[in-house]
Amino acid sequence: MKYCSTCGQQVEQKIPAGDNRYRYVCVSCETIHYQNPRIIAGTVPVWDGKILLCRRAIEPRYGYWTLPAGFMENAETTIEAAARETLEEALAEVTIDGLFSIIDVPHINQVHMFYRATLVNGSFGAGEESLESRLFAADEIPWDEISFPTVKRTLEYFLSEMPSGNYGLHVTDIRPPSAKRLDQNTSSRNTS
Amino acid sequence: MKYCSTCGQQVEQKIPAGDNRYRYVCVSCETIHYQNPRIIAGTVPVWDGKILLCRRAIEPRYGYWTLPAGFMENAETTIEAAARETLEEALAEVTIDGLFSIIDVPHINQVHMFYRATLVNGSFGAGEESLESRLFAADEIPWDEISFPTVKRTLEYFLSEMPSGNYGLHVTDIRPPSAKRLDQNTSSRNTS
Repeated sequence: MKYCSTCGQQVEQKIPAGDNRYRYVCVSCETIHYQNPRIIAGTVPVWDGKILLCRRAIEPRYGYWTLPAGFMENAETTIEAAARETLEEALAEVTIDGLFSIIDVPHINQVHMFYRATLVNGSFGAGEESLESRLFAADEIPWDEISFPTVKRTLEYFLSEMPSGNYGLHVTDIRPPSAKRLDQNTSSRNTS
Repeated sequence: MKYCSTCGQQVEQKIPAGDNRYRYVCVSCETIHYQNPRIIAGTVPVWDGKILLCRRAIEPRYGYWTLPAGFMENAETTIEAAARETLEEALAEVTIDGLFSIIDVPHINQVHMFYRATLVNGSFGAGEESLESRLFAADEIPWDEISFPTVKRTLEYFLSEMPSGNYGLHVTDIRPPSAKRLDQNTSSRNTS
């Protein structure tokens, strides 16, 4: 950020009065431009005991398999965002069965949220951002071609609980390989 | 938004190629400026069977009681944000016991997340944004002076489950009184 989106003048980084973090502040109109994490919302879509994955037609990770997910938009709920992304990327209508994973990715300022979901009528396809979509049985998941760590982690949790059908909520985080975990206890299954 | 934060020229609202929503796009450098919901993270801090509330020293809702909560910052996790806000507003160190509520507020582009928490040593106070903080027993909650609907809703859920100690996860949304609910089913207790 170099310029103020309110008045067009330059911004500088400084700690505003009463704050304790550097922010972009306009040198002219003094507007403070806060920057905050964004939510990625998606689903684990299931049909006939199989999981629907999409093969990405866009970068990053072109050609890799992913759960349908994307940036939550203004004026929608997390559930609406998750269902919308599933419709857009996999052309699949789903009913939402419950929140399954919340994975913080602090080094890229994102929070990934996946809901368990069931296809409404078993139909699916490839949206504009997908090369194809396909149903995978538990032993068919293409582990070496999964797009993102949060997708891999969510699939691992899901498949470990799929046999029992007793799904928990998983609140955890993913940090870059070099980063020391701040608190191992923040990665835990919420068993309540 | 009137000006491009990248180059300082004017922005216009248009639907970029491959998109289906109006975005702010720079007329000069063509940068697309996405706007997304923000996360409010907080806790339900408990000590000795009572709930810690803070009385707000800032607008909006100056003088009203709230659970400690605030905007999640870049480079932190939701758990870190919830604990930080509790320390800043109530001067209380807490351990996080589990995610308790996720309440979408789509008309103001926010997602509110509250974690159950326990004070580390029973000490608390009033941070810069609080007039005071105080422990309330279940029958002492100042219902007519609660700051925000998401706080009231979270407290209602919490108090209904406090006697059993069997806490669920509550995924729901709050819409303005005039808005027709899009889908009643999106408001449900996640019983998994």
